[in-house]
Amino acid sequence: MNDYAAGNGLINRRVLLTRAVRGGAVAGAGLLIPGVSQGRPDWMRRPGGPMSETGAPSNYEAHVVRRNIASRPGTAGSGASRTPLGHLDGIITPSRLHFERHHGGIPDIDPANHQLRIDGMVARPLLFSVEDLLRYPIVSRIQFLECSGNSSGLIRPKPAKLDVTALHGLVSCSEWGGVPLHYLLDEAGIKPEGKWVIASGADSAALNRSVPLDKVLDDAIVALYQNGERLRPANGYPMRLFLPGWEGNASVKWLRTLSVTDQPAMSREETSKYTDLRDDGTAHMFTFPMGVKSVITAPSPGIGMHEKGIYQISGIAWSGAGSITRVEVSADGGRSWAYAALDTHVLPQALTRFRIGWDWQGQDAVLLSRATDSLGNIQPTREQNMQGRARGSFYHVNAMQAWSVDESGALENTYV
Amino acid sequence: MNDYAAGNGLINRRVLLTRAVRGGAVAGAGLLIPGVSQGRPDWMRRPGGPMSETGAPSNYEAHVVRRNIASRPGTAGSGASRTPLGHLDGIITPSRLHFERHHGGIPDIDPANHQLRIDGMVARPLLFSVEDLLRYPIVSRIQFLECSGNSSGLIRPKPAKLDVTALHGLVSCSEWGGVPLHYLLDEAGIKPEGKWVIASGADSAALNRSVPLDKVLDDAIVALYQNGERLRPANGYPMRLFLPGWEGNASVKWLRTLSVTDQPAMSREETSKYTDLRDDGTAHMFTFPMGVKSVITAPSPGIGMHEKGIYQISGIAWSGAGSITRVEVSADGGRSWAYAALDTHVLPQALTRFRIGWDWQGQDAVLLSRATDSLGNIQPTREQNMQGRARGSFYHVNAMQAWSVDESGALENTYV
Repeated sequence: MNDYAAGNGLINRRVLLTRAVRGGAVAGAGLLIPGVSQGRPDWMRRPGGPMSETGAPSNYEAHVVRRNIASRPGTAGSGASRTPLGHLDGIITPSRLHFERHHGGIPDIDPANHQLRIDGMVARPLLFSVEDLLRYPIVSRIQFLECSGNSSGLIRPKPAKLDVTALHGLVSCSEWGGVPLHYLLDEAGIKPEGKWVIASGADSAALNRSVPLDKVLDDAIVALYQNGERLRPANGYPMRLFLPGWEGNASVKWLRTLSVTDQPAMSREETSKYTDLRDDGTAHMFTFPMGVKSVITAPSPGIGMHEKGIYQISGIAWSGAGSITRVEVSADGGRSWAYAALDTHVLPQALTRFRIGWDWQGQDAVLLSRATDSLGNIQPTREQNMQGRARGSFYHVNAMQAWSVDESGALENTYV
Repeated sequence: MNDYAAGNGLINRRVLLTRAVRGGAVAGAGLLIPGVSQGRPDWMRRPGGPMSETGAPSNYEAHVVRRNIASRPGTAGSGASRTPLGHLDGIITPSRLHFERHHGGIPDIDPANHQLRIDGMVARPLLFSVEDLLRYPIVSRIQFLECSGNSSGLIRPKPAKLDVTALHGLVSCSEWGGVPLHYLLDEAGIKPEGKWVIASGADSAALNRSVPLDKVLDDAIVALYQNGERLRPANGYPMRLFLPGWEGNASVKWLRTLSVTDQPAMSREETSKYTDLRDDGTAHMFTFPMGVKSVITAPSPGIGMHEKGIYQISGIAWSGAGSITRVEVSADGGRSWAYAALDTHVLPQALTRFRIGWDWQGQDAVLLSRATDSLGNIQPTREQNMQGRARGSFYHVNAMQAWSVDESGALENTYV
């Protein structure tokens, strides 16, 4: 029993190594039969394809696309698409697979005809083109972005038959590069009465959100780069607000104006939407930082086990409040827990990859993960997370995700 | 003069802030004229485009592609394409822009019909499919990959009129995820006489290289993921060897066999190619770790200044031996030097972004950067780097790059 880190097959890393050396087919690797050689495949018999200006994924990976693409009825560009988390690994999300959530579609902006305007309670209103911004100091940081409506499937009374993409695919992680907003606001000169900044976008929705000035002066940037290249149109080209760790909707895309005010705008997106209704009739507004959270991405529904043996459980954890310090995994529905290994890069307000080995011998199981962040916040159970919500209130869900495993090796969303 | 960090306009970060607040149009930002509003652009008057399965860059960024695509005469798939470094920022290279260097073209490999064979001086030869490998512990790390022929343009006796892409575009940086090779070799059981591993690919060139066993057991991985998704075909799909910090050619793509031997294979790619010829008639083989290096990517040829004022000098530094600890920049051809700021993520064997402000008032200048790594290695001058090379010997060039600036704000490759 010393071989196991917790109940129902969770394995110590040390043990895995021992088993790998001693045990043989730990991961199904085939023993080579002497005298039988690998056939020389077709692709070694003739020259392959040429170099190109831009590369693309393999045709054998054509299924790895954004999914659950939904538009609101009667609208062309209000909806979302989700990152296929079950097919990805590591912490970076390829930009082509970054989740989308738009309210007026994706504008096709000519950067030569786009400027950021800073006005309101400032000494000197200013306009900034992309070329202007490139002459300020830029910072680049790997950080997650999450829609506060992510994981809202978990509020349903019965577990929906949804996979990890449909349930949790409104989170992605990129290297964001841009100009710290304090440079620009210092230059405009904030008047003493300024307390909020109203950010609005150049989409047809002219989406606007109110951001406390403290956050804007702390770590907000006007992002110009994503994963090394200029922002993609679906992520705000040519410039977006980026608020590390805060709900995605407030990181206004296609950023067009920043108006300094003494109070919030009380706009549609912070009153009708993105507000948390409570069962005592109150509405909690301006809940900005995303809570500590984790989810096992593999195995998960549709990505199950095909035979008995040792598998790697892999998942992502993140917190708007800081770094991930610990992820625990259970294979027995929460009766026992083991520490997962955190992958090499554990960065503040970024996705953190966790992994733990699992010996699955065909038994029923319920897999769970629970993250803790650098402020000591612990991811809540679903029951804790639903406590006090008004019926249908679906923002800021960070409950633990449970996957049930049946004897065929298939997984399903479940509640514990 | 306290405003300056070194000669010819290099600026302290502190000073820039002061100037930004006090000086006004530090970066050309336009003062807003009261009463004149921004026109409402066309893209705010109608809904934008819909969500999609996969995203693409803006059409306004269509010029940001791999360049200097060269094939050897008479061959279809032997050549290279280069990362457009001057248009990128941060440390991640988008996978679609990762440099390419192929010897037999890009094979279109069906992962269901591809296996890695481990054989030679092992107790038990083994075969591993992609599905097998996914059941071993994976690690993900952000690390550069550089062709050892990168920067070879600097060996020319006269400075060639080439830009940063053409001169240095055979380096990129990704998050690489894969299985540490020590797991697989432990399972195969290395015999005591094993000292080298011969890696070969499933391309039509069946490219092979010899790697010392110590490196393979230290930090080599069989990479399956690049920037979160499966490897692209041009980077070895479905699996490649990845040797952190070592010359790119040895990180064999489309990895098909690993044979444990007691001596190197002395293959074409380590005798005729990728060997350093010296002017005393000797040939230095197996020079694996890439030297400490840096280059200013902006401004650079084609990415110059259009008016007088304050600019940001931005560049990348890296070392196969470890982390970057210091980058110095000169604007006067090496007479005086200032420390550049290193961006947030300074990771071992990864690109590190450096930046420093520069006040350009139309003067002639020669920009240089010089990196130091965590082992204390300092990037050599071109003269030092050329010392002792045989004529035409072009591998492992890590000389400082000098850009001359003329009064029009244009830059050119130059030697100092």
